[in-house]
Amino acid sequence: MSDSKSAKHKASMEKQKEQVDKSIAKADIERGVSILLTGNGKGKSSSAFGMVMRSLGYGYNVGIVQFIKGVQLSGEEIFIREKHPEVQFHQMGTGFTWDTQDRDSDIAAAEASWVHAERMLKDDSLHLVVLDELTYMLAYSYLNEETVLSAIRNRPESQSVVVTGRGGGKALREQMDTVSEINDIKHAYTAGIMARKGVDY
Amino acid sequence: MSDSKSAKHKASMEKQKEQVDKSIAKADIERGVSILLTGNGKGKSSSAFGMVMRSLGYGYNVGIVQFIKGVQLSGEEIFIREKHPEVQFHQMGTGFTWDTQDRDSDIAAAEASWVHAERMLKDDSLHLVVLDELTYMLAYSYLNEETVLSAIRNRPESQSVVVTGRGGGKALREQMDTVSEINDIKHAYTAGIMARKGVDY
Repeated sequence: MSDSKSAKHKASMEKQKEQVDKSIAKADIERGVSILLTGNGKGKSSSAFGMVMRSLGYGYNVGIVQFIKGVQLSGEEIFIREKHPEVQFHQMGTGFTWDTQDRDSDIAAAEASWVHAERMLKDDSLHLVVLDELTYMLAYSYLNEETVLSAIRNRPESQSVVVTGRGGGKALREQMDTVSEINDIKHAYTAGIMARKGVDY
Repeated sequence: MSDSKSAKHKASMEKQKEQVDKSIAKADIERGVSILLTGNGKGKSSSAFGMVMRSLGYGYNVGIVQFIKGVQLSGEEIFIREKHPEVQFHQMGTGFTWDTQDRDSDIAAAEASWVHAERMLKDDSLHLVVLDELTYMLAYSYLNEETVLSAIRNRPESQSVVVTGRGGGKALREQMDTVSEINDIKHAYTAGIMARKGVDY
């Protein structure tokens, strides 16, 4: 490598470090964060479960409510239930799937699951609460938007909350501290590749 | 709820189900997938670790190489090392951080870590291999692009691989089966909120 390339690289690295240091120095509020993982791409729920792993690494208590999913067994469900039963885990499951073409029973199932979410959002022993695929409950008006937003807003200060799912609505996006939008640039199934066990579910 | 709303909803649900069923029916190739999680938003590495959780749920073997990170201890590292020592876990760590303003030692560290990645990409007992933050090694030309791409391309058929990090380059994007781009709509630190233990690291 030439000396000029090396010098240029060094300057670039120094500048990056300086910018990151500045951002870190400016941020001084220490509290739980609220995160929305949205968009059409792959990786929303798995990202939430990666954060669960982080919290478990530090020995923190975690609560999870999965809205919608529950018909097909998933790797994360087996993992949590079998290897980390200390995690509070609730799945909407029975009474709701995309196969259910009955709005009233869907609403009943959503409301029954929301009871668990609401309890977790009041429990200050929980460091992290994951509300997986919650956005669909708002999009279909299965849950009252202001009830959900208010419960998230009024949670214990030390608690972080992660909401996943496409959409989510303007009010939710405005309220959350961090919003990441995951876009599908391409997806394996369009090339005929089946969903993969231990990766996609 | 009015009957017309219910009927409209039912039709909408049926149409969704039909479309999903069609996509599933078309996909018939069963093999490991290659996934790139890129973009500037939060959630790339955590998503990869969520997939690790899924694979562990099914009892599959997993290999992880983290490029760059290694100075600050992370929740995922503690979790894997203490609770799941069966996972092959390598971290670039010493010899490389964003504090290192020395290109030659960075290259040496990258190459030493690549040895582990290359070994994992040849090991058909591994169901999932995570190459966390690998893209930076390509962006800075610390690793040879064709060497990396070829190792990913020629991995065992049953093995899935997840690459994370901003950018990644055109050739990598073209080769990967699934590409998700995670965009930062907003981030808590811009509101002064510090990175959160058990969530951000």
